[in-house]
Amino acid sequence: MDNFLFHAGTKIYFGKGEIKNLAQEIHTYGTNVLLVYGGGSIKKNGIYDQVISLLSDCNVIELPGIEPNPRIETVRNGVTLCKKNRIDVILAVGGGSVIDCSKVIAAGMYYDGDAWDLVTTPAKIKKVLPIVTVLTMAGTGSEMNKNAVISDMKTNQKLGTASNEMIPKVSILDPQYLYTLPAKQTAAGTADIMSHIFENYFKEDETAFVQDAFAEGLLRSCIKYCPIALKEPENYEARANLMWSSTLALNGLVGAGKAGPWICHPIEHELSAFYDITHGVGLAIVTPRWMRHILNEKTVEKFAQYGKNVWGIAEEDSFVCANKAIDCTEQFFRDCGIPMTLSELGINDTHFEKMAEKAVRIGGLENAFVPLKQRDVVEILQKCL
Amino acid sequence: MDNFLFHAGTKIYFGKGEIKNLAQEIHTYGTNVLLVYGGGSIKKNGIYDQVISLLSDCNVIELPGIEPNPRIETVRNGVTLCKKNRIDVILAVGGGSVIDCSKVIAAGMYYDGDAWDLVTTPAKIKKVLPIVTVLTMAGTGSEMNKNAVISDMKTNQKLGTASNEMIPKVSILDPQYLYTLPAKQTAAGTADIMSHIFENYFKEDETAFVQDAFAEGLLRSCIKYCPIALKEPENYEARANLMWSSTLALNGLVGAGKAGPWICHPIEHELSAFYDITHGVGLAIVTPRWMRHILNEKTVEKFAQYGKNVWGIAEEDSFVCANKAIDCTEQFFRDCGIPMTLSELGINDTHFEKMAEKAVRIGGLENAFVPLKQRDVVEILQKCL
Repeated sequence: MDNFLFHAGTKIYFGKGEIKNLAQEIHTYGTNVLLVYGGGSIKKNGIYDQVISLLSDCNVIELPGIEPNPRIETVRNGVTLCKKNRIDVILAVGGGSVIDCSKVIAAGMYYDGDAWDLVTTPAKIKKVLPIVTVLTMAGTGSEMNKNAVISDMKTNQKLGTASNEMIPKVSILDPQYLYTLPAKQTAAGTADIMSHIFENYFKEDETAFVQDAFAEGLLRSCIKYCPIALKEPENYEARANLMWSSTLALNGLVGAGKAGPWICHPIEHELSAFYDITHGVGLAIVTPRWMRHILNEKTVEKFAQYGKNVWGIAEEDSFVCANKAIDCTEQFFRDCGIPMTLSELGINDTHFEKMAEKAVRIGGLENAFVPLKQRDVVEILQKCL
Repeated sequence: MDNFLFHAGTKIYFGKGEIKNLAQEIHTYGTNVLLVYGGGSIKKNGIYDQVISLLSDCNVIELPGIEPNPRIETVRNGVTLCKKNRIDVILAVGGGSVIDCSKVIAAGMYYDGDAWDLVTTPAKIKKVLPIVTVLTMAGTGSEMNKNAVISDMKTNQKLGTASNEMIPKVSILDPQYLYTLPAKQTAAGTADIMSHIFENYFKEDETAFVQDAFAEGLLRSCIKYCPIALKEPENYEARANLMWSSTLALNGLVGAGKAGPWICHPIEHELSAFYDITHGVGLAIVTPRWMRHILNEKTVEKFAQYGKNVWGIAEEDSFVCANKAIDCTEQFFRDCGIPMTLSELGINDTHFEKMAEKAVRIGGLENAFVPLKQRDVVEILQKCL
C-alpha cells in the first residue's frame, strides 16, 4: 500500500427530501448565487422550481445549458457572470458535467488569466468559490471529489484538472431525483461508476486489501442494482445504492494507496474529444477490450480475483475464471442497453493513430499496470469497432 | 436505507513517515499547542522525541498520563491548561482514549461550566479547539469521527458524547507506529473495530447493500490481518490494513442510513464503568453471547449472510450457517489471545442487575434490532461468566 492523502470533506445530505437543507447551507456562504444547470430536465421534473422557491431570499443568477461534455467557452461565460455579479457561492444542479463546469468556474473567479490555463495547469488553481451541489445523476462522483473534465472541441482536447480547493462543500443526494433519468443515462452512469472502480482495482499493488474489498462491494452493487433501476425506475433501494456507490467510487476510498495511471479514461477522453460521445458509453465499449488486451500471466490472478469476488465465478483455472469475468463484464453492459461497438456510434478508425498517441502521452499509459504503447491502444480501439 | 448525514472531513495522512506533515498542519492553527498523551509508551518508541523535534518552534504544553478509560478529572485538568496557556490547537498522540479526552478538553476551552456537562449534554458543545492527532493504536476510530467516551469512576458512569465540531482536522496514520503495540492491545483493538462494524451491520434494514458490503470487507480485513500482526508485529501490510480498517469502521460509512441503537457498547460501558476493564476485551466477551441471544427466525438470514460473506461458510441451512458464524467469531477472539470470560477478569454477577438496568436505559436497548430488556442483558452477562 502506497502512502496516501485522503480528504473528502464534502458534507453529504443523503435521502428523500434532503433538499430541505439547501437554503441553510447556501446562506452559510452568502446570498449571491450562481445557479448552474444543464439541458433543462430539472425544469420538467420540478427540481428547478423547488430550488428557486427555497432560495427566494437570494439573488440567483442563472447559467443554464451546460453541455454533456462541458466546454471551455461555457466556463468562460460562467467566470464572467461570477465576477460581474460578485457571486458568493455556486450551486450546481445536475450531474458530473454541471458540477465539473462549476468547479472550474469557481476557480476562474479568483484567476486573472484565461480559464483554460486552470485546465492545463492545475497548480494555477489557488482560491475557489464555495460549491454546493444537488445531484440529479449518478456516475461521475464529482459531487465529492476534486476532479473536473473540460473540453475544447476546437482543438479536440478533453482534459482533466484537479484541486483540493474544488471539492464541493455540500452535496445533496436524493435518490428520488434519479427516477426520471432516461434508461440510457442510468446505464452510461453505471458504466462510468464501474470504470472508476476498475481504474483503481487493476493495479500492481496486492496489499491494499481494504480498498479492493470496497471496490468489489461497489461493483456488486452496480451489477445488482442497475438492471433493477432500468426495469423499475422508481425503485428507491436501487437508486439509493447506485447513487451512493457512485459517490464512494470516486471520493478517494477505492484508489487510496494505489498509485499509477488510469487507462480507459484517457482513451475514452480521446473518443469524446473527437466525436463528443457519451462518456459512460465510451468507457463501456473500451473496458472489456482493454481487459482482454492486458490479460496475461502477470495479471491473471487479479482478474481471477475479480471473477470470484465480484461475479461469483467458481472456477479453479485462473485463466478460465478471468476470461469468464471479462465476458460477464461485456455482456452486462450490453444487457443494460449500451451500444457496445464504436461502429454503432458511427465511429471508424480514421483518427485512431492520433487518438492513441494522445492517450498514451497525456495519460502516461506507458507507466500503467500493464504498460501500453500507441500500437496497443490502436489495437484496443480496433477491437471496439 | 434511512436518510443520513455523512461528514468525515478529517484530512488523513496515511503511510510511512507521514509525520513529516505535522508542523505545517499545526502551524495552520497557531503555535500554542497542548500535547496530550498516555502512559509514556511514546517516550519509549521515539514518537515523543520526533513530535517535540518537529514542533521546536511551538510553545508546547504537555498533558501526559491519559488513562485507558479517560477520566473527567483529567479532562478538567486539560481545560485549565488550555485556558491558562491560551492554547491554539490540541495535538493528541495516542489511541482512542487520548483522542477522546482531547476532544472534550477542546470543547471545554469554550465552555464556562463544568466539563462533565459536555458529556451528559452534547448539545452544550458549541465551539471547539482544532484537534490534530497522531495515531499510535488501531481500534476506536476516534481519529476521524465526532465521538468521545469519558468516565466518572466515582459514580460508575462511562458515557459517550458527540459533536461534529469535535471531528479532528488532521490525523496522521503511520502503520509503523503500531509495530511496538503489545499483542493484547492489538487483539483488543481489533475486537473494538469488529464491534463497531457489528453494531451497524446487525440492524433491521436490509436495503443498505453498499454499507453492508463495506462492513463485510472490513471484517474480513480484521480476520485476515489481526493474526498476522500478532505473529509478525512489524508486518506493514497487516498493520496498514488494520489501521485503515479501524478508521473506516467508525467514520460513518458503515452506519450511514442504518439507524437504531448499539447494543454491545452500552453493555460493555457498564463493565468498564464498574471494573475499569479494557474496552475491546469487554466487547469481545459480550459479542458472541449477544449474537446467540438474538439469533431467531427474524434475524437468522442476516447471521447467515454474515457467515457466508465474512467467514466463507457454505451451508444451505441458515441456522446452521448462523451458528457456525457465531462460533467462528468467539473462537477468533480466543485465538487472538483475548480472555473470553468475565471470570478470567475477576468479575462476578454482583452488579449484573444494576449494570443491565443502566445499559438498557442509557443505551435505549428496547429499541434495538432485537429489543432487549433488563432480564435479557442479565442473561447475556451470565453467559459471559
